[in-house]
Amino acid sequence: MSPSPQPHPFDPLSPQEIRLASGIIRNALVGSDILFRVITLCEPPKKEMILFLESEHTSSEQKPHPARIAKVQAYVGSSSGKPIFTEFMVDIDAKKITREEELPGKHSYIDADYMRQVETACLADAKVQEEIKSLKLPEGATVVVEPWAYATDGMNDMSERTTMCWFYMRLSPHLDANYYAYPLDVCAEVSEALEVVKLYRLPSSAEEGINNVKKDFNSQKVHASSEYHPDLAQERRTTTRPYHVSQPEGPSFQFSGNLLSWEKWTMRVGFNYREGMTLHDVRYDGRSIFYRLSLSEMFVPYGDSRCPYPRKGAFDLGNDGAGVNANNLKLGCDCLGHIKYIDAWHNTSTGDPVKLPHVICCHEIDDGILWKHTNPRTGNAVVTRSRVLVLQTIITVSNYEYIFLFHFGQDASVHYEVRATGILSTAPIDIGDKVPYGTTVAPGVLAPYHQHLFCLRIDPALDGHRNSLAVEESHPMPVDDPQNRFGVGYTTTSAIVPHEAGLDLDHSANRVFKIIHERRPNPVTGTPVGFKLLPCYSQMLLAHPSSHHARRSEFAAHAVWVTRHSDDELYAAGKHTMQSSGGEGIASWIRGRQADPGQETSVRDEDIVVWHTFGSTHNPRVEDWPVMPCEKMVVGLKPLNFFSGNPGLDVAISTQDANRSVLVGDAEGCCQTASASSKL
Amino acid sequence: MSPSPQPHPFDPLSPQEIRLASGIIRNALVGSDILFRVITLCEPPKKEMILFLESEHTSSEQKPHPARIAKVQAYVGSSSGKPIFTEFMVDIDAKKITREEELPGKHSYIDADYMRQVETACLADAKVQEEIKSLKLPEGATVVVEPWAYATDGMNDMSERTTMCWFYMRLSPHLDANYYAYPLDVCAEVSEALEVVKLYRLPSSAEEGINNVKKDFNSQKVHASSEYHPDLAQERRTTTRPYHVSQPEGPSFQFSGNLLSWEKWTMRVGFNYREGMTLHDVRYDGRSIFYRLSLSEMFVPYGDSRCPYPRKGAFDLGNDGAGVNANNLKLGCDCLGHIKYIDAWHNTSTGDPVKLPHVICCHEIDDGILWKHTNPRTGNAVVTRSRVLVLQTIITVSNYEYIFLFHFGQDASVHYEVRATGILSTAPIDIGDKVPYGTTVAPGVLAPYHQHLFCLRIDPALDGHRNSLAVEESHPMPVDDPQNRFGVGYTTTSAIVPHEAGLDLDHSANRVFKIIHERRPNPVTGTPVGFKLLPCYSQMLLAHPSSHHARRSEFAAHAVWVTRHSDDELYAAGKHTMQSSGGEGIASWIRGRQADPGQETSVRDEDIVVWHTFGSTHNPRVEDWPVMPCEKMVVGLKPLNFFSGNPGLDVAISTQDANRSVLVGDAEGCCQTASASSKL
Repeated sequence: MSPSPQPHPFDPLSPQEIRLASGIIRNALVGSDILFRVITLCEPPKKEMILFLESEHTSSEQKPHPARIAKVQAYVGSSSGKPIFTEFMVDIDAKKITREEELPGKHSYIDADYMRQVETACLADAKVQEEIKSLKLPEGATVVVEPWAYATDGMNDMSERTTMCWFYMRLSPHLDANYYAYPLDVCAEVSEALEVVKLYRLPSSAEEGINNVKKDFNSQKVHASSEYHPDLAQERRTTTRPYHVSQPEGPSFQFSGNLLSWEKWTMRVGFNYREGMTLHDVRYDGRSIFYRLSLSEMFVPYGDSRCPYPRKGAFDLGNDGAGVNANNLKLGCDCLGHIKYIDAWHNTSTGDPVKLPHVICCHEIDDGILWKHTNPRTGNAVVTRSRVLVLQTIITVSNYEYIFLFHFGQDASVHYEVRATGILSTAPIDIGDKVPYGTTVAPGVLAPYHQHLFCLRIDPALDGHRNSLAVEESHPMPVDDPQNRFGVGYTTTSAIVPHEAGLDLDHSANRVFKIIHERRPNPVTGTPVGFKLLPCYSQMLLAHPSSHHARRSEFAAHAVWVTRHSDDELYAAGKHTMQSSGGEGIASWIRGRQADPGQETSVRDEDIVVWHTFGSTHNPRVEDWPVMPCEKMVVGLKPLNFFSGNPGLDVAISTQDANRSVLVGDAEGCCQTASASSKL
Repeated sequence: MSPSPQPHPFDPLSPQEIRLASGIIRNALVGSDILFRVITLCEPPKKEMILFLESEHTSSEQKPHPARIAKVQAYVGSSSGKPIFTEFMVDIDAKKITREEELPGKHSYIDADYMRQVETACLADAKVQEEIKSLKLPEGATVVVEPWAYATDGMNDMSERTTMCWFYMRLSPHLDANYYAYPLDVCAEVSEALEVVKLYRLPSSAEEGINNVKKDFNSQKVHASSEYHPDLAQERRTTTRPYHVSQPEGPSFQFSGNLLSWEKWTMRVGFNYREGMTLHDVRYDGRSIFYRLSLSEMFVPYGDSRCPYPRKGAFDLGNDGAGVNANNLKLGCDCLGHIKYIDAWHNTSTGDPVKLPHVICCHEIDDGILWKHTNPRTGNAVVTRSRVLVLQTIITVSNYEYIFLFHFGQDASVHYEVRATGILSTAPIDIGDKVPYGTTVAPGVLAPYHQHLFCLRIDPALDGHRNSLAVEESHPMPVDDPQNRFGVGYTTTSAIVPHEAGLDLDHSANRVFKIIHERRPNPVTGTPVGFKLLPCYSQMLLAHPSSHHARRSEFAAHAVWVTRHSDDELYAAGKHTMQSSGGEGIASWIRGRQADPGQETSVRDEDIVVWHTFGSTHNPRVEDWPVMPCEKMVVGLKPLNFFSGNPGLDVAISTQDANRSVLVGDAEGCCQTASASSKL
């Protein structure tokens, strides 16, 4: 993201701007200790952006840019000695703080430096050392402590940061040996002040709870089948022959700053510490479709009911950050073909810019056939191939990896794909024991049941910003309807959602969620222009509505939500998820507006946001061990009577001349190849 | 499919065998007129094949081959003058007919020669000519008659073949002009004897029925936006730059005859006139997984209740044949990369072999990341890429195209993908009219609502042939369970289906259908080895259970069926779907066995077959016109505690050295590329 003289309002903060923002705060707070946690773009109010974009796309005279605001979150030293978590808004151009708010009881997302201190403090604690000794671990074992954010369970006052410490061991001296293969029977809780406040043994059987029964490590748990690193794992297959992608004229996309153009699509690519990749002002053939697309939140609650496992419940965006945990993607490893990488900028605790290199890769893939028809009368086939633009980002959150991909199609479809991979979070289990909350994936290794629940935030702008959500279903005509005397008729019902609500899927009624612009009829069909959601059918949150898990992840109760747009409502589980205790997510916003007679709750022909919750109930298979083959979840958005015909009708006809495929010969038992030109 | 000295029992009939079979019948029926419709392999009884495969995979001494039997269907001339539809079994080696059965009231699948005669007879009919004249078509119009198999509706005695004739016109002299853009307001029914027995006008408004009101063709319907052929359609985009796949060492698969080996998978590729591609004896790493995988049937019922549209209901396998309608796939057009094509053999009406060239293509694709983990402590990332083996076949059934793809993964997953493309079947509508059963996609062009319902037949053989079907669900623990005091616990329930049944999906309970081998515990998890179905969530048949559509397509009532294996039960809607009237599909088999005390209906630890019905309720979008961008439907089969760990753990680590990707440079506004080697 190379800085331009004047950044586009959607451009993330440049390193210069990050430095400016921290400098402004340091100057204003001279003498205070400041631990910077976030210095990020505060996107301009949508009202201003609508005017700006309108002028950008229609007139030659550009509207003045909205103020460039940095949102800064920092721990600011106070006279009491306890740093105060504070949020600032900094006007970069005016060089001043425009807002300052202390956030008592809130915590910033996970602080990697602090977590390292927790680990060190935990391992240095005498009681912990004694407990480890009492495990009688095999010779050469290295104990690894994995600190986790505490999932609120009502058991503690959560005004202080508390950290769960899970214990594992590495048996091999190799630093990439898989320590999740040896979950140890010990658990500790560490206070804000880095003190071990609780230390106990973990349950083994289904009925057990936490306890203080000192059991030795069972040497029968030692095994060799849980390694994934090439230095340690089994012999690798050599049967997969090389596969190269070449694009002799280069890729079909173009970047101008963060403005991406590809096959009639244009969009601005954004990135921030929390959501990771964001997409803005997404248009096809010049027509506005989405104002903003982003992953809003995700929640990984564990289903093991035994104490202390209810404390495992990770908000990987709010607690960890999809941006700060984004992988540095590697050419040829994470991405194949002609790859454009995008870097992002974050900040150090001293407020200096730090580069997050290669957090997004952009490339094209071939996706088979886009459309085909053979006229049976003439035998003439007409085929086009589907080229897809991929924007990929990958995050590592301790054990797990998530791959987030946007796929843009030449037929004006968008697909959002999530792939879950990485290593299962494990817990110890005695050999021979079984529990109903998990799968034994190796000797003594329990992979507990859990869910992955994602919330995709879709801020539509179909030919403008006043849109509606319609729910369409297909139903048989009554069998006694005289119009239906053969009993085969069916029609659709359609209802526009009048007020903010959470809604459920129903494939048995072919329930389709359509975002429409009611006042904009399609010239051919006469119906409002729209896009439909192709949902990912998933089970919603299993935790009881009264549980802390449910209260903290309100978005996980329904598959589809529609709300009125609010600049302040980007995160479906609320702004601060670390040790949150509920009452600040999507359902709370709706309830709040419903309860306030001064507020509107209508979502018909309004500036609306649609949220889709999806994911998987992940009851691990042994095939997910020791590293999990990607589990894919896909959500689609497709035009529904938005255009006047197939938007990909004009894609070039597929020919061998352009595609240069190679015919594989008939020789038996081996794979001889011959170039197509000599064979055809 | 090159013939080997002795064919494998799963090999389709060779051209020599086809000729032999027809010769044997001609010799036996000297003097009779014989119109051969089918000469295909009658696969050996499974009981014999199990023994054969066992010896093939375990001992050096090969069991004798089962008898090589051809199934022949033909119309045999009789003294009455009316040819009799007859089925023969012919022992190829013994050179004799082993069974002969007349099939009164049954019809063979669509006879292309006959359909051409219908079209000619219809157009030559004086009343039809008069009716066409009365339409007052524009100058230069060419009328096209599209004959369709008659979907039984209880209105006629169906012992005779009846053909619906739908009328369209081409306005352009170009033979590939899209005549579906001009559905005409006329319809005819043609008898077996090629006589036009009915002729009427089609309804326009929602309440209208068939009628005799002579309306002129409305010249306002003439439009230019419905062409897809490159000679006729709009200018084509030139922004899509070339994309080549090269495999310098050739593909990773090998063929030995029809035996395909790829990345630990082995299978035998079959093909027949009806199902098209079939897969047999599918194994991974030597372990048996599936005995047979095939698309069993598909049904496309239309939802327009107005007479005569209930007669539109196509069984595209039983009526048309996925094999005989398979496209001759073209290198570089239908398939990209290193492609192996497979030919098949069919027969002429005289019993001679006829080649169906390139009906299957086999190639590899890159599918992004297979698994990845970055150890956050060392920063070391380990990534593998997912190579997928693709077996693709494409069929054209009049207006529509279906692309059928098997995807095999290195993680031992199988995905079956269907892509629907081609042109919507259209009906006339008056300009300005609207009906609740369809979408107006161009002036005067109604694209009626319809469903596409597919039935995938899964004949499992997980470590042997006695398997069971288990239904697993995830449910919250009761909130008053003392073990669940945080309200977050959940567990699974599992029930084995005891008897043959049709079952439904429920994503809200995370209902998982698992095929298991109950007596074969997984050594790590202790649970039975299994594979799970990843269903395609779809609406089932909308037609009323009492309708002919429902009675004829029994499989379309439930998403999952389990039956006992029977050699005779390959086709979910019965053997003869042409003008069928019900009582011969999957539900009938089950009912028949339930009603017969001498028959078993248990499906626990038995040789079972699992059927998955899926598809789409296709209420057309204008974006599906004039040719439809592929609509994808995907079904998956994944190991579930079948192996002892990730089957793709040993896939080679992804490296730039092997993958040769190319870094796209930073130059703004254009797409300069630089070779990776010079940049890295």
